[in-house]
Parts: sequence; C-alpha cells; structure tokens
Amino acid sequence: MTGQDNIKTTSIGTLGKNALIQRLTQDFETRDKSTVKGLDNDASATGSGQKISIVGTAMMVEGIHFDMTYTPLQHLGYKAVALAMAKVVAMNALPRQIMVNMAVSSRYSVEALEELFAGIHRICQRYDSDLAGCDICSSMSGLTISVTAIGEADKDRLTGCGGAQMHDLLCASGDFGSAYAGLLILEREKATFKANPDFKPDFASHEYVLERFLKPEPRTDIVKWLAENDIVPTAMTNVADGLADAAMRLCSISHCGCEIYEERIPIDYGTSHVCSDFGTNMLPVSLALNGGMDNELLFSIKQSDYEKIKECPNVAIVGHITEQNRGAIMVTPQNTAIELTSQGWNSSIPSEE
Amino acid sequence: MTGQDNIKTTSIGTLGKNALIQRLTQDFETRDKSTVKGLDNDASATGSGQKISIVGTAMMVEGIHFDMTYTPLQHLGYKAVALAMAKVVAMNALPRQIMVNMAVSSRYSVEALEELFAGIHRICQRYDSDLAGCDICSSMSGLTISVTAIGEADKDRLTGCGGAQMHDLLCASGDFGSAYAGLLILEREKATFKANPDFKPDFASHEYVLERFLKPEPRTDIVKWLAENDIVPTAMTNVADGLADAAMRLCSISHCGCEIYEERIPIDYGTSHVCSDFGTNMLPVSLALNGGMDNELLFSIKQSDYEKIKECPNVAIVGHITEQNRGAIMVTPQNTAIELTSQGWNSSIPSEE
Repeated sequence: MTGQDNIKTTSIGTLGKNALIQRLTQDFETRDKSTVKGLDNDASATGSGQKISIVGTAMMVEGIHFDMTYTPLQHLGYKAVALAMAKVVAMNALPRQIMVNMAVSSRYSVEALEELFAGIHRICQRYDSDLAGCDICSSMSGLTISVTAIGEADKDRLTGCGGAQMHDLLCASGDFGSAYAGLLILEREKATFKANPDFKPDFASHEYVLERFLKPEPRTDIVKWLAENDIVPTAMTNVADGLADAAMRLCSISHCGCEIYEERIPIDYGTSHVCSDFGTNMLPVSLALNGGMDNELLFSIKQSDYEKIKECPNVAIVGHITEQNRGAIMVTPQNTAIELTSQGWNSSIPSEE
Repeated sequence: MTGQDNIKTTSIGTLGKNALIQRLTQDFETRDKSTVKGLDNDASATGSGQKISIVGTAMMVEGIHFDMTYTPLQHLGYKAVALAMAKVVAMNALPRQIMVNMAVSSRYSVEALEELFAGIHRICQRYDSDLAGCDICSSMSGLTISVTAIGEADKDRLTGCGGAQMHDLLCASGDFGSAYAGLLILEREKATFKANPDFKPDFASHEYVLERFLKPEPRTDIVKWLAENDIVPTAMTNVADGLADAAMRLCSISHCGCEIYEERIPIDYGTSHVCSDFGTNMLPVSLALNGGMDNELLFSIKQSDYEKIKECPNVAIVGHITEQNRGAIMVTPQNTAIELTSQGWNSSIPSEE
C-alpha cells in the first residue's frame, strides 16, 4: 500500500557496515551542548557537569550472534550484558547500571528466560551494576536482546575514539583471535553432532577459547588500572570486529595512521592450537586481525607513559601511531608492511526467504 | 547440545507481560548509589549530582509493532524514536540525545534505510535532540529497531512511577483510544486491499487517528508547561498499553488506589467515529482503557495545584488517588464502580512455526 518495493535499488550488502552507518548518519548535526561525545565513539557521553554520563548499547539477534544449539542461556544473558558494558568501558568508564529489552517468541518458556536472567544477574553482581530497566515484547521468531549499559566518567578521564597523536604508543588488552577460535570449535562439533546425534561433543583442551566466545568479560580491570596509575589514553576503542577493524577505526576518527608489529600481537596458545587443528591454511594472526568478538580494548597513550604501561598486566604495546597518509599497516617479522583491511560485513547478511 | 528443550515447562503466554517481568527481575537488588530510580519506572534515573541522567529505551519488531504493508518508513523511524523519547518524558525530563540500534534483513535496501533515517532526522530536529550513537547488524528476517533516548533532569523535578498520595488529582494528557482506532482503520483497509489489489484505500476523514497511530509525539510540551508553572507531579507514567494498564501500574508502584470518572476520559471525535463505523459493539471507552499505543502521560499532582492545572491546555483531570485497598476503578456516569483490568499480553504472542 505504501509502495516501498519500488524504491529498492542498492543492496545493503554492497556497502560495508561502517560505510552504511556513515551514509545513513551523515546529515545528522550535533547541536545540544550536553552532547560531549556522540557518533564515531563506542558509546555516547552526555551531561553538563564534571560527571559525564556514558551510555553504550548492544544488540544480539538469534541466528546472527548466537545459535541456541550450543549457547547456554545463562552465558547468553551474561554475554549480552558484557557486550554493552564493553562499550562503556571503551570510553574509559565503569558500568553502573544496565537496562534490558527483549523480543521473545513463544518457543521460549518462562524457565528458559529465568536461566537467561540468572546470567544477567551474575554479571550485574560481578561488576557491581544495577538492573535499572527491563522490557519484554513478543517476536515473530527467535530471541533478540538489546542491552543499554550506563556509566559515569570524570570529564577529565573521558576517552573517545578520536584523539590519538603521532608517536603515541598503541596498546591492546588481553589476546586476539581466541573468541573466533571458540566459535570454530563450536561450529565443528555442531556439524558432527548433526550428522550423528549419538556423538558426544568433546571440548577438552579448548576450554579457554570456548569461554572467550561464550562468556566474554568487559575489561573494567584495565580502566581501573589506568586510573590508579594516572594514565589517560589519548584514544580508545572496543575491539569487537577484529583488531584490524578497530585499528582502522581509531586511525580514521583520530585522523592518523598506525603501525602494528605482527610479533607483538598477543595470541593465546589455545588459538594457535585450534588453527593447527584446522589445518595449515588457517593462520592465528588472521584470526586476531579479522576474527572478531574478542571484546578487548585498543588504545593509544603518550610515549611519556611508557614506563608505567609496560608494568600493566594484560596489556601489550602492539605498535605506534603514525601520520595519516601512511595508513593503518601491520609490519611482519620480515619487515614487510601489509595494509590492514576490514573483513567488512557483506558475508554476514543472510538472504531472507 | 545444551539440552535446553528439557527445561520448557511454563509458556510465557500464561503470565501477563508485567507479571513476567516481575518474575524475571525479582532477585535483582539495587546497590549502586548512583541509581536514583530503576526498575518500576518508565526510564532509569542515574547520577550523583544535582543533574540526573535519564535513559529510556524502546524496541519495535516487524510483524509485532509494525506492518510494512501500511507503514511509511519515515513514519516508522519517527515513531521508534518518539516511543523512546516518551519514556524520558514520563520521568518529567526532556530528551537530548538518542542512540539507534537496528537489526535488518537483506530485504531492505540502502534507500529504504535512508527513508527510515529521514524520519529519525526529522524527530531529532523537532525535539532538538542529537543522534549520539548508531549501530546496525543483520537479522534473519525483518527489521528490529531499538532506540535509547537520553535526557537530563533536575534532581528536584525528577518524577517516577511511585509517589502518588491519597487525594492527589489524577491528570492525563491528550486523548485516548485514537491510536488504536487508527490501527483498526489500517487493518481494515489492508484486508480489503488483499482481497482486491485494485482497491484504492480511502483514509479520508480518518487523518487524525491514523496520525496518532503512525506518528505519535512525545509530550515534551506537558513537561515544559509543568516546569513553567512550577508543578512537580507526585507520580507520572507513560500510557503505552492503554489507560487502564497505566493507572493500575501507577497505583501498584505508588501503593494506592484511584478513581477515574468515565465521562472525564478525553476521547477524540475521530475515535468515536471509527467505533460507530465498526458497529455498536465497539465502545470508545474500551479503546481508551485498553487500546494502547496512545503515548500520552498519566500523572498525579497535589490538590493545591488544582487552580494551575485546570488552565493547562491538553491536560484533563480524570480522577483522583484513593487508598490502596479500594483498587483502581472507573466510575460510570450511572455511578457504578468498575474495577480496571489490563488486557494483558497473552493474545499478542504469535506462535512460532
């Protein structure tokens, strides 16, 4: 009746996710004085005083972000909240409250939702956060969870995605590629299980990578360590879609380039173990750069903070910031410069019907 | 693999929406000092200073909250934001920023999403709000939009859902039942169109009710008027699921009862017109009490504010607050007391597969 079919011309798959968001939001101007940081950051920063309110959101869609075949509901609730909290953390702030919105189909029972909320309760307790809002509606199919996380930051410590300067050190928390390695294991066992329902999945020796995928943690420990050691990063971002995507985004918004040294990228033994299991074509560094879902922090600091940061457990100095026209590159042990590319989004859009 | 099928026992349809949320959230304690108002309110109120940050969320799911057959995309974008802003408004605050998360299937083109964002842009301009965050992911089917609206309130003016006192006046903005009347018209024309694709839908004389359904407005005008006239409501809530549901919720959280006078409930002529079109069994007051989607405000004020509030355009005094054991009732013109009941949620859960 509204004739919407006539206007279809460009498939969303032809643009990357970042380009699509850029195109849709390009006409929006920022006018309100209380908007301290908006688009281009992992979360919004708003307020008019010394204390800034940070709001981060995350949405998880069944069939896209999780597969109920192998996702324990408690872990799912935990993870949905962790992803939203990670957005607040990426602004150098701590989460204090969360709000949960859910669309749920009749396939889910009250008891199943109680399991999910047990996971939400657990992460709230672990990170001293309150559930400050909850709404539930029905869905035509499957489960969609949308979480809003709220935190408060001192204006002086607030860190956005822009602000990295030439010669700053580029630092990363945790390790990369392990969450994707966990997903690979789960998908492999699922395929085997489908072919033979009597098959008992064997996850032994893969505990770490599985936990990385199923139950990520927001890196509040890093935010606390930085505050205790009086370091304010010049820029910071959440690594959600691989290290390459995060580095490119930080560089793009800070109008700079970067060099990452391949041998400095932290990769867990468990990730390498999965790669060798899957054959020689799968390189751990590819998982680290493009695997995604690591939920870690990438941030830049002034060189003068070098002596402090090298004492930080769980943080590696992976490279440094360069001038913009050098781009975002990785330097191999053989001293070859490889331009970083983002895997983009195209392959992840399932076609409907 | 995780054996979730075994734990299914209670269908979510057997509980009402409010009872389900109550059951899932009952174990959550509020611990953080910066949580000023949490669960039980339309939005969260957080912060540690004189300025309180208000965060409200709304989720719209294709096939549940909107039907693309008759929903112009611009209106859809506008409405999704209006619903989230209305949550902030219901805390007696004005929206300043919004954040948009979307899950979208390949059925939508870039141009279609541009239409949607044109509507989002329009409402941002109209209500002086900034788009402070945007994320898009893919979905297996259809479109889900989740909007987070952020506002700031003076601690002294902040109004939650609890706080209504005996003898307070119960006030309502706008009119009730008209949005649902609009939906009835759209569904009727859709059915006729399906039976005969050459049929040209005729919406003449129904413009008002259609606009009420397709393009609701957050009542920032009421919040501004209350501030200008120095009235702080004792309690306030967003009317999203009908006047009865809102009155029952306000009473439950304020631990009070209320009396609403049937002849005081504002009902537009357009709503009565639709009812008479549909036959004698459809009463305008039923649409007002249970139709839902009106996006108006229900609030209580002290009796001492009576002289002021009766001058407020677009606000009607519909009743008053009573003691808790009297319950939430409507008094008919014949002086019969009818206990209010919420239509609940059961009928709105489609069964999957």
